[in-house]
Amino acid sequence: MKTCKVLLLGYGVAGKAFARILNKTHDDILKGKDIDVKVVGITTGSRGSLVYQDGLDLAEATRQLEEDGCFDPKGPYYSKIDSMTAAEMLDYDVLMELTPLNIFTGQPATDHIRAALNRGKHAVSANKGPLAWHYKELRDLAKRNRCGFFFETTVMAGTPTFNMAHHCLQFCEIDKIEGILNATTNYILKEMAKGVPIDTIMKTGRELGFLEADPSMDTEGWDASAKLTVLMNVLMDADLTPDKIDRTGITGVTAEDIAAAKERGNVIKLMCRGTKDADGNVTATVRPEEIPAGDVFAGEDLVAVYSLYTDLMGKLTFLQYGLETTQTGYGVFADLCRVLDFMNGAV
Amino acid sequence: MKTCKVLLLGYGVAGKAFARILNKTHDDILKGKDIDVKVVGITTGSRGSLVYQDGLDLAEATRQLEEDGCFDPKGPYYSKIDSMTAAEMLDYDVLMELTPLNIFTGQPATDHIRAALNRGKHAVSANKGPLAWHYKELRDLAKRNRCGFFFETTVMAGTPTFNMAHHCLQFCEIDKIEGILNATTNYILKEMAKGVPIDTIMKTGRELGFLEADPSMDTEGWDASAKLTVLMNVLMDADLTPDKIDRTGITGVTAEDIAAAKERGNVIKLMCRGTKDADGNVTATVRPEEIPAGDVFAGEDLVAVYSLYTDLMGKLTFLQYGLETTQTGYGVFADLCRVLDFMNGAV
Repeated sequence: MKTCKVLLLGYGVAGKAFARILNKTHDDILKGKDIDVKVVGITTGSRGSLVYQDGLDLAEATRQLEEDGCFDPKGPYYSKIDSMTAAEMLDYDVLMELTPLNIFTGQPATDHIRAALNRGKHAVSANKGPLAWHYKELRDLAKRNRCGFFFETTVMAGTPTFNMAHHCLQFCEIDKIEGILNATTNYILKEMAKGVPIDTIMKTGRELGFLEADPSMDTEGWDASAKLTVLMNVLMDADLTPDKIDRTGITGVTAEDIAAAKERGNVIKLMCRGTKDADGNVTATVRPEEIPAGDVFAGEDLVAVYSLYTDLMGKLTFLQYGLETTQTGYGVFADLCRVLDFMNGAV
Repeated sequence: MKTCKVLLLGYGVAGKAFARILNKTHDDILKGKDIDVKVVGITTGSRGSLVYQDGLDLAEATRQLEEDGCFDPKGPYYSKIDSMTAAEMLDYDVLMELTPLNIFTGQPATDHIRAALNRGKHAVSANKGPLAWHYKELRDLAKRNRCGFFFETTVMAGTPTFNMAHHCLQFCEIDKIEGILNATTNYILKEMAKGVPIDTIMKTGRELGFLEADPSMDTEGWDASAKLTVLMNVLMDADLTPDKIDRTGITGVTAEDIAAAKERGNVIKLMCRGTKDADGNVTATVRPEEIPAGDVFAGEDLVAVYSLYTDLMGKLTFLQYGLETTQTGYGVFADLCRVLDFMNGAV
């Protein structure tokens, strides 16, 4: 039996959802893959850290954060170690980067992942910053050091995307990607189309917990641009950063625009589009567009969607439903499974 | 460098499409996976066979069939060997079962696959018969003999399904499957909804090459039932055969039914539904149902679709577009890639 020692950097929504799934599946993993997965460290920015080589009790860690707001400083495994030091110093097999996103720099998440890969440790990132800004460097570093480097969650949570393309679209060329990649703006536009005033939408969204106090990363199209960047860099071998995307957010979209679109049988969606021509030139746009109301992309209950256009398999469309945080946790878990398969000899 | 010797049983639409893709990707496979893929045998029912251990020229094999209607009996690699003897006697690493389907028995395809697996050879099946009737036996035989056994094409051609679930939905429980799995009836119902008379639809379908002279396997729901069986046996660990599905075809659907459904804002589709309850009891139906016109499943340009309902990832929906035979060939090719990864140590 092998052991896989996991270091979690960050323990927010994704981390806690991942912990629930890992607790539920631990014994099945042991049986199916002959690997004992142990979380040996959890770091947070301001709520303390936990370190224990024999494996932390994840349910207890979650309980402490939810009930006390921080890890118990008097607990036996409490530590003040910060994420960067943990990445550089602790003994682990896979680092899971779950710290808050800085969409304009990808830091300090990129440094965490670099530290892990430089030490020959596998890395999983739920954080799209490192992917949007430094994908090729990190990919090449992982390859040189024979490490796994996976990031399923960065686009549409656990919806099979990067892992799917790696395994199921081998040797396909992808020359076009279309998507609605930002769930928040999709929600806002849907509510606006129902006639709900924008202030009410924002208030409700904040109460439901998926709208930030400052939602401009979503409404200005930065989040969608970062996701389109990751999709295009990984799946089309593009060399983009989010600032190179031709980007228009939804802040200029008015209730009148939506009503006028409806008159024409259309709905307004924040569409992401990427293409690559035969010479390898890429174009990438994020902007509000009118979509026919009957189109798959216009679906009422849809959270997000992408279509890939390939040479060997034609067009493929994948839809995401449900804004459940468990899907984010599952994406991280799916990447852990890839690490475990990698440890067992998979490619 | 390793070698992977491929035996193709059958060389119809799927075989020729696979051959085109393999010819195009052979050198990239060699570079990416360090395996030299060679087709060492092709058998057909009545058009002769070809056998050559150093690897056949696939473009030339296709040319002979298309121009002469059979392999050249005077050619250097011509053979009269039949599929069963080839499966039992030839030297190969992976058998690809591409012979015509017998939907009521799964034979002789099942015997071909048994022969390969019993000899410790990998097997790929584009033929859904063996999967619909003997999946668990073949799966267990492959496992005992440490062989790969893959069958992506059996449902929705190369659309990522079984390989996707294996790699990307690890440890998920699937308790519900919905799908429109038969492209032919989906086409017939769509044309009927446009007001095209059924005789014209059948004539056009035959001319376009996707309607059999006797289309009853499609119109009576047998093809859809076989596919639902495979999905449920593989993804839900059910123990079905096609005759156990509660099956109603589309032959009873009239233009009047379709018009009446339209009045209600609906379209008629041949829906496949499978569920598994908490006690492990399964129910499976294939029948014409009314679907709201705005539903994803009602899409005009859709060829086929499935939704999976999972415990950890919620609902996932995958859409197939384009009736291209290349997608069938790609599904077979995707399975070959899994065999190659298996040979390289993948799980």
